[in-house]
Amino acid sequence: MQLFQRSMAFKGAIELDIFTHIDGGSATAADIAGRCGASERGTRILCDFLTICGHLSKQDGAYRLTPTSRAFLSKHSPAYLGSMAGFLLSGSQMAAFRDVAGAVRNGGAVKSESLDPESPIWVEFARSMAPLAAMIGGAVAPLLVSPEDGPTQILDIAAGHGMYGIAMARQNPQAEITGLDWANVLEVAREHAEQAGIGKRYRTLPGSAFEVEFGGPYDLVLVPNFAHHFDVAATTAFFKKCRAALKPGGRIALIEFVPDEDRVSPPVQASFALTMLVGTPAGDAYTFSEYEGMLREAGFRNWEMLAAENIPQRVIVAVA
Amino acid sequence: MQLFQRSMAFKGAIELDIFTHIDGGSATAADIAGRCGASERGTRILCDFLTICGHLSKQDGAYRLTPTSRAFLSKHSPAYLGSMAGFLLSGSQMAAFRDVAGAVRNGGAVKSESLDPESPIWVEFARSMAPLAAMIGGAVAPLLVSPEDGPTQILDIAAGHGMYGIAMARQNPQAEITGLDWANVLEVAREHAEQAGIGKRYRTLPGSAFEVEFGGPYDLVLVPNFAHHFDVAATTAFFKKCRAALKPGGRIALIEFVPDEDRVSPPVQASFALTMLVGTPAGDAYTFSEYEGMLREAGFRNWEMLAAENIPQRVIVAVA
Repeated sequence: MQLFQRSMAFKGAIELDIFTHIDGGSATAADIAGRCGASERGTRILCDFLTICGHLSKQDGAYRLTPTSRAFLSKHSPAYLGSMAGFLLSGSQMAAFRDVAGAVRNGGAVKSESLDPESPIWVEFARSMAPLAAMIGGAVAPLLVSPEDGPTQILDIAAGHGMYGIAMARQNPQAEITGLDWANVLEVAREHAEQAGIGKRYRTLPGSAFEVEFGGPYDLVLVPNFAHHFDVAATTAFFKKCRAALKPGGRIALIEFVPDEDRVSPPVQASFALTMLVGTPAGDAYTFSEYEGMLREAGFRNWEMLAAENIPQRVIVAVA
Repeated sequence: MQLFQRSMAFKGAIELDIFTHIDGGSATAADIAGRCGASERGTRILCDFLTICGHLSKQDGAYRLTPTSRAFLSKHSPAYLGSMAGFLLSGSQMAAFRDVAGAVRNGGAVKSESLDPESPIWVEFARSMAPLAAMIGGAVAPLLVSPEDGPTQILDIAAGHGMYGIAMARQNPQAEITGLDWANVLEVAREHAEQAGIGKRYRTLPGSAFEVEFGGPYDLVLVPNFAHHFDVAATTAFFKKCRAALKPGGRIALIEFVPDEDRVSPPVQASFALTMLVGTPAGDAYTFSEYEGMLREAGFRNWEMLAAENIPQRVIVAVA
């Protein structure tokens, strides 16, 4: 019942940069408080709570990072993921869960902001989730793209931070990426493409993925974390649109949380269905057999599900 | 980061009475949805999520209660505790955690409703927490009161639901209880005393525990879940006031979450400090040595800490 306290304490710790200060050498509540500009009493209570949650250890009044918090929660680490709290624990994400009973009664979000055109949620998403997406993109790119592919055209649907398309461009130096998203979000993708040194091979296509002309034809259409927002009919129609933009033999690649057919395992992937229930009118965490059905209906063939190591997402690839 | 989703799903399940409907014979999402007046799709997604959290099991599309959820989450069970969600996951309790970083900076609640006179929070508390308090009271009463004590006067500070004092009255049929709390809360305590058949031995004393005349003298002053709301100086002064209302040789009994001296164990007790940080200006989960210091300063002697089985609370008793 009270697990929400752990999320909120975690969010507070990220905001105060507690993990970075400890990594920087602060150990006692007084030291850490000094660095945070916070009260010693509040810092002691929060650090004790983080210790109970397993994010810190405590000995003789001195707090230390665990190996995991050092790797992912200190800004001194190249694998820092704390920024994710900015999206996953943002007001809008939390608000969606405020009335779970209402969403269950209704069969979908009571009120969904996430699909509004140009919603600022997706700029927040693009900034906060970029570091994680970079890791996932790096793990997934070798499954889809090879340095020997030569010149290829890749469309990245709902590109967001742009990190998936950028990972493909890094894997194949002759790949050209078209990032599609709302114009406000594409500014973030453009920044990341420049930072990654692939700006010259990065084109942006602003608009709704359902309405804008895709252009093409493409060798690969990436559909990362997108299909889960919509119902089966809309997703199937959307897959058809993707197929029409592919060269013969071109491929679609979904990057998704795909629960097992029992829908209760693995836990991270299966849990995601509730986020879609409360946050979208009709989205879901679809199983592989559901994606098979939609891809078949859309005219694709040779679908298969690929797994990369150390990430919970799966890649479903099908041929146009 | 996303554990808050578990609290919110749990709250939704209690509101929809999912566990009671399954205990009543519903098994599939369609059955349960029919009973809840909810969508099948939403019910399936919520029940899958509850299965992932370990509150249900699922086999071939049929959901079943676990032994724990049957015992505590079905209204058919005499030990039903689901009402606790009404307080622990109420808007005011959740709101207190919205800005943990702010409370840490500040060293206490940014804004505290919990200590406002006649705050409706405590009526909500009294109604929601009564079933749990009845269990705790039943476990604690034999440590403090005996059927052979004869006529005794017991003052129950911040009586709330009244369940601690009522448990003492049940343990000793000659005990007379005075319940002290805000007038609006005492209506709930009065109801519970009547239901328990001890209404004739239950007197109410409305007002602030810091300001109202206690009367007495008493054989026992119960101080359950109260001292943690205040700082050491205020609590010490309050203990002095309790001592002045006791007969010579009379006892004070605190019922509290008492963390170990390291303040990070046991987890439930130690975690409680954060609830006090964000919810009160200066409260804390005090250790036994801190309570010893306050009781000594207030003139008490022979303090000891008692433990009842199966409850996380401890009882600290001292002699006037």
